[in-house]
Amino acid sequence: MATATAEKKDRSKLIPFSSRLKEGRALAQDVWSIFNALNLPADCINLGQGYMNFPPPAWVTEAAEEALRTVAPNHYSHPKGRIRLREAIKKFYGPQLGRELDVESEILVTSGANEGQYSVFTAFLEQGDEVIMFEPFFDQYLPSVTFNGGKPVYVPLHPPAHDISKPTSDDWTIDIAELRRAVTPRTKMIIVNTPHNPVGKVFTKKELEDIAAVAEEFNLLVMSDEVYDCLVFDGKEHVRIANLPGMWDRTVTVCSAGKAFAATGWRVGWLIGPASIIQPTLAATTRIVFCTNSPLQEAAASGLEQAKERQYFEIQRAEYAERRKILADVFDQLGLKYTLPEGSYFILLDISNVKFPDDYPFPESVLGRGRDFRACWFIAMEIGVSSIPVSEFYCEEHANIGEAYARFAFCKDVDTLGKAAERLKNLKNYM
Amino acid sequence: MATATAEKKDRSKLIPFSSRLKEGRALAQDVWSIFNALNLPADCINLGQGYMNFPPPAWVTEAAEEALRTVAPNHYSHPKGRIRLREAIKKFYGPQLGRELDVESEILVTSGANEGQYSVFTAFLEQGDEVIMFEPFFDQYLPSVTFNGGKPVYVPLHPPAHDISKPTSDDWTIDIAELRRAVTPRTKMIIVNTPHNPVGKVFTKKELEDIAAVAEEFNLLVMSDEVYDCLVFDGKEHVRIANLPGMWDRTVTVCSAGKAFAATGWRVGWLIGPASIIQPTLAATTRIVFCTNSPLQEAAASGLEQAKERQYFEIQRAEYAERRKILADVFDQLGLKYTLPEGSYFILLDISNVKFPDDYPFPESVLGRGRDFRACWFIAMEIGVSSIPVSEFYCEEHANIGEAYARFAFCKDVDTLGKAAERLKNLKNYM
Repeated sequence: MATATAEKKDRSKLIPFSSRLKEGRALAQDVWSIFNALNLPADCINLGQGYMNFPPPAWVTEAAEEALRTVAPNHYSHPKGRIRLREAIKKFYGPQLGRELDVESEILVTSGANEGQYSVFTAFLEQGDEVIMFEPFFDQYLPSVTFNGGKPVYVPLHPPAHDISKPTSDDWTIDIAELRRAVTPRTKMIIVNTPHNPVGKVFTKKELEDIAAVAEEFNLLVMSDEVYDCLVFDGKEHVRIANLPGMWDRTVTVCSAGKAFAATGWRVGWLIGPASIIQPTLAATTRIVFCTNSPLQEAAASGLEQAKERQYFEIQRAEYAERRKILADVFDQLGLKYTLPEGSYFILLDISNVKFPDDYPFPESVLGRGRDFRACWFIAMEIGVSSIPVSEFYCEEHANIGEAYARFAFCKDVDTLGKAAERLKNLKNYM
Repeated sequence: MATATAEKKDRSKLIPFSSRLKEGRALAQDVWSIFNALNLPADCINLGQGYMNFPPPAWVTEAAEEALRTVAPNHYSHPKGRIRLREAIKKFYGPQLGRELDVESEILVTSGANEGQYSVFTAFLEQGDEVIMFEPFFDQYLPSVTFNGGKPVYVPLHPPAHDISKPTSDDWTIDIAELRRAVTPRTKMIIVNTPHNPVGKVFTKKELEDIAAVAEEFNLLVMSDEVYDCLVFDGKEHVRIANLPGMWDRTVTVCSAGKAFAATGWRVGWLIGPASIIQPTLAATTRIVFCTNSPLQEAAASGLEQAKERQYFEIQRAEYAERRKILADVFDQLGLKYTLPEGSYFILLDISNVKFPDDYPFPESVLGRGRDFRACWFIAMEIGVSSIPVSEFYCEEHANIGEAYARFAFCKDVDTLGKAAERLKNLKNYM
């Protein structure tokens, strides 16, 4: 066993980690660790992190089981992805994009959408290049950009005006003049996220056309994070910015098997775009992960192959709309304002009117953060339902905007959501 | 459908990819693509890339199948890795390392050993930091270092002296004075790879002690890539540099489920080291991939849990020794010199005496590369067995050393290796 002396000696000359970890909140205790099941009461209902409490469909997992019983799908896949999955992506997305996708140069399977996006940054960012993102933003964007030498630039999604009594995600708006003003000679890329996490906003064609015009004018890449593309409600149309005139050549579209097939732990995603974007990104991902796990690529392929015939996405959308309604109804009953999401599986509750004692025994980790951190902690402990404070999705300067909201995930079964709704009724004692 | 005009317009103002892709051979056609099954005759026996043509054990894959049929193991794992796998790693490696490993701070599951190593570079390298690697080196190290701003520095493994008639991997030697001379004020890290790919060298305790002394003297990190640790033959001892006095605090040991359980496509690996190395690396991997796929972590855990009782690694070593013998025997019969590997599943054939016509119809991709590229191509086409030219594992300046060798992988079943051996006998016509 190592002696204390040896450890002491070496601790005095610890090898420093990279300065890149000092940027982009990389070492901060992230919100997911604070609002982790381990820190919360055992019987707390977890509507915090966005993973399902139900399994992927059996007809999808069966393909992985078959793969595990054979030889090749247990071994290295091509860094581009398994050809069966690339063919399935071509067939599924090609018609939506109005193109014959080339499986060799226009599709890239990645180790989750997260790693796919990271690879795009690795492939395209120079030191000091600016990346514009709409705020609030999916929290992983920030360190993924800074790790690759980029500088995040924030453009607000404006919250619904106060006089709107029943806001939807469509009431979160962009000001295209603000986007235009954010562009500098160092701007390289705009991140679009539709449907949007955490707001649930499904960007309209007009909004995307306006963003596209800016991208065209200043010759910018667009990374369009569409991982919730299969979760759009109320007949709203999911528009792909890659489909707008002139945009294919500068857009990479990001998709996720985890979101599509209720399998967030499979770490299978894919990028679709022109060879000029996909080929450099392939060079990046090949070095970062070499390739993506093979058995679950087979499962994702099987899912895409059968989805249409089984009306899988139509049924799934209806199921999620029902789940959304359970939370929306209880918030309505309470008279609490919330943003009805037109896409994704998140609902933002306005917690401005939820009251809690200042001297509540909060842990260190939520003190010194926004009011929403304390509110979410209080709700988790007293009501027994966990959510995520939305200031985490803002840069420090603008965190106060997010403080008004808690994000509840409704990617849970109806029973669990029903129980959560029962508990949430007790919020009436804290209003 | 996109029009040719629109594409032409955009091609004129292509958004440039990052300059980091111009370093470290990131965009070069790599050896794996050139010697790909798609480019070679359909009946060519593939002893090139190092993946098995047999499946993982059924008692290991069954755990993945079970995981697929439940809920949680289809969803996000903790970025540190699933607790079951971390506990299994603690139990399996703790005794070998003479420590009670802390599953929270000293073990990190990564998306393959490759991504684990990439994350260490991301976590520790500053722009211009130098990383020493012994040459020949696993080809992914080079771009993984340069992508993270590092500068590779090469120290040779010296090939066996010409008068050794039956060299083993132990006859490839390091000169510690050369290692010491390679250290500069910018040196941050030494990569050790034991058992070594492609040489098969299992570094001796004395060699590792000498390397450790240099690391101690200059306060360097050591990344010890031990992914072939379970494949050491002839009673040779696999020494872990982390076990040498004072080395735990500066060493991260890299392991791989793919190599251990014949599952190179699972993309599950793990890092073991002190919290001072694992915690910054966790911050890096959390942003790069967020977490590693869950079902195959369950399988890897099951493998480690049962390995001892089943004498799995002992049996596997004996099987690989038998596979190694098939190739060694045919090279002996031919009177061709080769390096008998004491570890890994690679055997280096000295191809200096293999003759081929200069005017053979070689493809563009192998012309302009080392003689070994042409020799390997010729052997694949005329003998029907593919291998990998070893100059790929050297920097450009030293590629000529590697030109004398072809790397044959023996991670194939006995039947396949027997057929390959029969074909290789025909090399006598080209000597």
